[in-house]
Amino acid sequence: MSEVGMRTFTMTPIGVVHGPYRDVSEIPKGPGAEHHAEGTLELRPDLEPGLADIEGFSHLIVLWVFDRSEGCELHTRPPLDPENEHGVFTTRSPFRPNPIALTVVELLGRDGPRLRVRGVDMLDGTPILDIKPYLSGVAPEKLRRGWVDDAEARARGRSGRANGTF
Amino acid sequence: MSEVGMRTFTMTPIGVVHGPYRDVSEIPKGPGAEHHAEGTLELRPDLEPGLADIEGFSHLIVLWVFDRSEGCELHTRPPLDPENEHGVFTTRSPFRPNPIALTVVELLGRDGPRLRVRGVDMLDGTPILDIKPYLSGVAPEKLRRGWVDDAEARARGRSGRANGTF
Repeated sequence: MSEVGMRTFTMTPIGVVHGPYRDVSEIPKGPGAEHHAEGTLELRPDLEPGLADIEGFSHLIVLWVFDRSEGCELHTRPPLDPENEHGVFTTRSPFRPNPIALTVVELLGRDGPRLRVRGVDMLDGTPILDIKPYLSGVAPEKLRRGWVDDAEARARGRSGRANGTF
Repeated sequence: MSEVGMRTFTMTPIGVVHGPYRDVSEIPKGPGAEHHAEGTLELRPDLEPGLADIEGFSHLIVLWVFDRSEGCELHTRPPLDPENEHGVFTTRSPFRPNPIALTVVELLGRDGPRLRVRGVDMLDGTPILDIKPYLSGVAPEKLRRGWVDDAEARARGRSGRANGTF
């Protein structure tokens, strides 16, 4: 265990996100938040060959860096449930041990090293670490989502609707 | 663009995978591959508070490092379709610009900093970078999976069945 913790891994961005959000406050979050914003994933030109055949995929997994967040909070109060603390690994808080984020986007089109996508929830200029094909998901009826289900149910009770991210 | 590519990010493992696979050849892959192996995600003891409330979640997203693969191939021949080359970003090849992998596992139970999970497809000893809650997926009827759909259809034609990873 200790020896694993000692080895570190250095990641180099493969590209950058272009999108409408310049400040975290502009990104929808909390009960009922949905992400339909369009943007572009611009890859480094030397990596463009790695996009071969990507037009056939409707959805992509984007791994990126919370490059404008610092620090780690093991307990956090998420926007969806600000009255309660939850373990950071049950949330998408940017203040995590490794500042890696994940977003599933819909691929709208490609222009060379640039992918037009829908579902951007990153800040403009965010560094991208990886892009993977979205192949399958967990069936909704098999999914339990702990405090998120509880908080969404409470939010629905208050507002009549709530779904999406947190 | 160039300035983004210059900045690097150093990641430190949050824990390690314990599982049945000692060699890559033991991990199911290609047409019809399914991952039901059980294993343990052991977190660093100092990070255990970050697991608070995780028992309520049925599925987790695990980000981990291909720590026993070296190099990057922008075109690759996946086990599911070895006769054709595809861009690395349309595959789960370990030979990618940043050696980050993603696995969705089912959470079976927790013992302090150890999570018992089903769906392990990593080698024993693999470093973990992050754990996130699995909250929602893309509806199957909205999903197009490019060459993967084509290759699975061909494999079904040969063997009568094919689904899973590649």
